Amino acid sequence: MPKISEKGKVMPASPIRKLTPYAEQAKVDGKTVYHLNIGQPDIETPELMLDAVKDIDFKVWSYTSSEGTLTYRTKLAEYYNKLDYKLGTDDIIVTAGGSEAIIFAMMSCLNPGDEVIIPEPFYANYNGFACECEVTVKPILSVIENGFALPSIAEFEKLICEKTKGIMICNPNNPTGYLYSDEEMQGLRELALKHDLYIFCDEAYREFCYDGQAFISPMQLTGLDENVIVIDTVSKRYSACGARLGCLITKNKEVIATALKFAQARLSPGMIEQIAATAAIDTPDSYFEEVNKRYTKRRNTLVEALNKMEGVFCPNPGGAFYVVASLPIDDSDKFCQWMLEKFSHNNQTVMMAPATGFYATDGAGKNQVRMAYVLNREDLKMAMLCLEEGLKAYPGRIVN
Amino acid sequence: MPKISEKGKVMPASPIRKLTPYAEQAKVDGKTVYHLNIGQPDIETPELMLDAVKDIDFKVWSYTSSEGTLTYRTKLAEYYNKLDYKLGTDDIIVTAGGSEAIIFAMMSCLNPGDEVIIPEPFYANYNGFACECEVTVKPILSVIENGFALPSIAEFEKLICEKTKGIMICNPNNPTGYLYSDEEMQGLRELALKHDLYIFCDEAYREFCYDGQAFISPMQLTGLDENVIVIDTVSKRYSACGARLGCLITKNKEVIATALKFAQARLSPGMIEQIAATAAIDTPDSYFEEVNKRYTKRRNTLVEALNKMEGVFCPNPGGAFYVVASLPIDDSDKFCQWMLEKFSHNNQTVMMAPATGFYATDGAGKNQVRMAYVLNREDLKMAMLCLEEGLKAYPGRIVN
Repeated sequence: MPKISEKGKVMPASPIRKLTPYAEQAKVDGKTVYHLNIGQPDIETPELMLDAVKDIDFKVWSYTSSEGTLTYRTKLAEYYNKLDYKLGTDDIIVTAGGSEAIIFAMMSCLNPGDEVIIPEPFYANYNGFACECEVTVKPILSVIENGFALPSIAEFEKLICEKTKGIMICNPNNPTGYLYSDEEMQGLRELALKHDLYIFCDEAYREFCYDGQAFISPMQLTGLDENVIVIDTVSKRYSACGARLGCLITKNKEVIATALKFAQARLSPGMIEQIAATAAIDTPDSYFEEVNKRYTKRRNTLVEALNKMEGVFCPNPGGAFYVVASLPIDDSDKFCQWMLEKFSHNNQTVMMAPATGFYATDGAGKNQVRMAYVLNREDLKMAMLCLEEGLKAYPGRIVN
Repeated sequence: MPKISEKGKVMPASPIRKLTPYAEQAKVDGKTVYHLNIGQPDIETPELMLDAVKDIDFKVWSYTSSEGTLTYRTKLAEYYNKLDYKLGTDDIIVTAGGSEAIIFAMMSCLNPGDEVIIPEPFYANYNGFACECEVTVKPILSVIENGFALPSIAEFEKLICEKTKGIMICNPNNPTGYLYSDEEMQGLRELALKHDLYIFCDEAYREFCYDGQAFISPMQLTGLDENVIVIDTVSKRYSACGARLGCLITKNKEVIATALKFAQARLSPGMIEQIAATAAIDTPDSYFEEVNKRYTKRRNTLVEALNKMEGVFCPNPGGAFYVVASLPIDDSDKFCQWMLEKFSHNNQTVMMAPATGFYATDGAGKNQVRMAYVLNREDLKMAMLCLEEGLKAYPGRIVN
């Protein structure tokens, strides 16, 4: 029997799927499960996006150009230029989700053994993509006490060595919801210029900033044209995760030309998705205002309920639709599993993602969980009631 | 300015796109161009597949499970089991096109430096995927004189060394159209078992076999459950290249479990494509019979016209919709470019893919071109007239 690869052996399984086979079950052992474990929003996809799908009128479902259709890239450039990114259509490569954009970015910019510094906790699949590209992730700890703010530039500099080629951030952050400030982004800018580093910025949650706080992209900062690579996706913006349509953006011409070779090898992004996403760019601002109002209320509901529980702490994040909370527990993996398998309250329970999966440092996040507020407020309240009762009953509860 | 990666530097540009910016132009310098250069069929996508897209009735365009929906994999298994593949739904991972399936297969099975033997000429993007996975392609020459039949098993054995981990074939073959015989497949079976090798079989063109010849898959051969990985796609079967939906199939449980980790990292294949492809599996046999009749006639038209030209030889392939022909020319790269830029006949010309891009061996295929018979017969005839006149006028013509 032929052997599997070494890479295949060390490739991490998705931590969000750790609790499979429960991941997609509405009920476990007859109990209703509130799914706060994954970032699949319940928000409806804009009608004009789905209408564009229903209105297709071609006869041959054909390839598009490898970098994406000019029509779509033109609309995308308009969208980004409203945010002052100052892009041309040639600065964009359309990809199969943000995932493919990350892989293209890593493959184009990083050699095996190169290091990328990523504030942890971070989106767990960065580990998988780094493994695919044999890149070393150097985590830098952000802490719950200050809401997972960016670690100081001095802390970054301690980690920088010859092998360091880039910094990767997700803004607003998954899993913490933290929205990086102008000051923090300026700090990263200085750092990148001083050490000649790439800044890989995953902006999947760009649209979801709350309390009037401004979103800052490294694309908007001066002097970074050669350094910045933005990863984007329609998944969260239009609640269209299943479209698998993202893009890689950079003004670095050498990176774009290189990424295009990887894009050409896989021929084309999806055609219908590009038609749909082209239409989606005309989604009225009122849609996003409405959605953000809903998310803000949900966040408030969740954060308030969490902080009322004894021994629980949850920062109030400025963006995305996640929170990471610390709980009075011995081990979040055990606790999350126990909540599913052993606990119920009014025949209900709640599914959360153990935060350990979002840390590269062994043992970090052991008393933390990530929750996505992708359910309506009534369900969130019920879920929090389950959590509160669960924490009381959990045998591994830590009493201070 | 940060540097691009070494991999990015050596990553091959797509040879099929060599003649960009002409690749997608209907006219060059005012001349009509017959595009025989790429495998984008003009055949209409089955109506029931496009209707399934138009009939979507969900509100949230959501992720599916990473391995693909159970509904789609159940239908796929039915389809494959009609071909006697004896598969379960767990033997299938749905991917973003055949391309992603190849990458998953290579990443799961092969280490950097491992060797895969591939009969050349071969689908050029295998080079790109091998580059991404740092796998070494060992070409084994198949020759136009016998229609690009599989090289003898003895020739394969000459190339097998400690690093050899697999053999990759495309059946029916792109670019040659060659359909591997039962005897050839049995030979590969013996070889794989004797040397404990993977057989990666790209079956993108499975539906396109002509003259009553049988299609043989290694999936149908006994004793190969641990060795065979089939790559498939809906691109050609349903003329749905732009759907970007493929799959990886294997009964090797360790490979499937490993590939699933790569699939989980990128979350999900496209949702609407899976709905459409589920419907497409009910495409009536009459659709394929009709399409194959058309392709057979086109192939006959093309092959006949080519072999009538002085100094031209074109085998009559048993499948797919490509031919590779040898021409009395010095250099197919130069010739194809010359045909586009310098030549016209009745204000028309023809675009072909230089065969050099399909060979890994330097200098091989220099007098060969690949043509895709993806146009109607009238256009094919006109294209062949252009080629015939072009060959007469070409300054680099080789006269024997």
